[in-house]
Amino acid sequence: MTDLSHGAAWIGGRILPISEASIGVTDWGLTHSDITYDVAPVWGGAFFRLHDYLDRFFASIQAVRMNILMDRFEVHAALEEMVAASGLQDAYVAMVAARGPNTVPGSRDPRDCSNHFYAWCVPYVHIVKPEQAEKGTSVWIAKSVRRIPRDSVDPRAKNYHWGDFTSGLFEAKEQGFETTMLLDHQGNVTEGPGFNVFALFGEVLVTPEHGVLQGITRQTVMEIARARGLRVEERALPLEELQQADEVFLSSSGGGVIPVARIDDQSFSNRAPGPVALALRSTYFEWLEEPRLRSPIRYG
Amino acid sequence: MTDLSHGAAWIGGRILPISEASIGVTDWGLTHSDITYDVAPVWGGAFFRLHDYLDRFFASIQAVRMNILMDRFEVHAALEEMVAASGLQDAYVAMVAARGPNTVPGSRDPRDCSNHFYAWCVPYVHIVKPEQAEKGTSVWIAKSVRRIPRDSVDPRAKNYHWGDFTSGLFEAKEQGFETTMLLDHQGNVTEGPGFNVFALFGEVLVTPEHGVLQGITRQTVMEIARARGLRVEERALPLEELQQADEVFLSSSGGGVIPVARIDDQSFSNRAPGPVALALRSTYFEWLEEPRLRSPIRYG
Repeated sequence: MTDLSHGAAWIGGRILPISEASIGVTDWGLTHSDITYDVAPVWGGAFFRLHDYLDRFFASIQAVRMNILMDRFEVHAALEEMVAASGLQDAYVAMVAARGPNTVPGSRDPRDCSNHFYAWCVPYVHIVKPEQAEKGTSVWIAKSVRRIPRDSVDPRAKNYHWGDFTSGLFEAKEQGFETTMLLDHQGNVTEGPGFNVFALFGEVLVTPEHGVLQGITRQTVMEIARARGLRVEERALPLEELQQADEVFLSSSGGGVIPVARIDDQSFSNRAPGPVALALRSTYFEWLEEPRLRSPIRYG
Repeated sequence: MTDLSHGAAWIGGRILPISEASIGVTDWGLTHSDITYDVAPVWGGAFFRLHDYLDRFFASIQAVRMNILMDRFEVHAALEEMVAASGLQDAYVAMVAARGPNTVPGSRDPRDCSNHFYAWCVPYVHIVKPEQAEKGTSVWIAKSVRRIPRDSVDPRAKNYHWGDFTSGLFEAKEQGFETTMLLDHQGNVTEGPGFNVFALFGEVLVTPEHGVLQGITRQTVMEIARARGLRVEERALPLEELQQADEVFLSSSGGGVIPVARIDDQSFSNRAPGPVALALRSTYFEWLEEPRLRSPIRYG
């Protein structure tokens, strides 16, 4: 028996250990970062909001004009087969559509590539360690880079163009911060590596609208917030406004709601998680258990 | 004996057929497009300007803060061993530095990744087919996308962030054009997928200075042009100025100097290659044979 407890992959109908899963060095998915993907969480043996993640994944595939020759039922089946084989009860599950190798020698035409689907899963990833998330994390506003603008690469089709995030992460780590947040060229807050951003002003919760991924966890947070009676505004959020917020938090399918205690040299809620952020975090973990939002996995 | 005539790769000290060369699906080189690379041409059994390509490759590695644990002599030796094993006399040789897998479970810190070097070669690639280059190629100015700005991802460290180019290529192909050229957010010409751009005005040759790769072929072309008595200007080139050019051509290590006969609905030099572009093209191929610029490969 192969050990899949560190993670598994589904490639071309085969289940492999994650350590053996690879993509060819001339695949446009690699050489042109010509990939769209999605990440769905598995929590306690079930996918959370899988249909929403599949909706977005297939919308992204259409946006980047690929054809993976599989429909959503086949993708769902592949993901379930893979996670079941891994035995993982809490997992980070990536589904990937790659442009593929160019099948016409010498062609530089993306339409000549053989698109393909693959998937992989590893034990659940927290983008910020839970113990740090519960104390409130620290965020560095990147100074040397601005978020790749949406008229260069559309952030709504989830993609691997992370050069700007990586530059920001280097800055953040060198300054002793946990993660980074990027501004757009107009000085508005966008997003960070793997998360959306929220700012609370009294009873009003604001999250950037353009130039960001329309996160599924972002969506869940907005639903929870509205159910609690908060007003939610999706709109431009200038940095100067963010700095006046009562609370700031991040949302990610890798950890839910992550309170922010510090941005650059500025503290929030006495350098601790804000009460609303903590309440939303707690409710998010409750929602992860909601049967109406779960697609249970039949383990072998 | 393994057949390496379709291409070979050097990975971790081993030579493989190109079809077996791959990178792990969780390598940050893939998942964050966190790679810098270079491509040196081999022509008639020798590398062309290899030392310039190696200079740029190691400058890029430093710019993106990687450490591949190999120096330029070791990289040169790996490239030569690989090309010699392939037997290819005319080749496209890629040298790649990847961020690598994160070696600390749960870490999101790029400094925790295990950087690595690999290389691959395939038969020489012309970014525009020679028969088309000699008639003058056609270029579509991308309308739906602008080049990723240099304060988001630095184009001087050659990288795989090609989402903007790929969108432009789809537009170009659908409009019946061979390739695409991208503008920056100020409306200046930048570059295209795999090439720099030149515009000739009388005796003055203009090429964009910022927001582009400092191409080695671009450098060669400037040297040839100056040797012919042209004045060369590296500066911003607005689209409106490009449209007034006497001649336009592209430069690439995948094909040298490529005359342009048409941009959008506008023809240049009676929809034929311009005489200066043709002369530079011819001289470039002569320079490829210059012993002072060549590093011969010792085939086994």
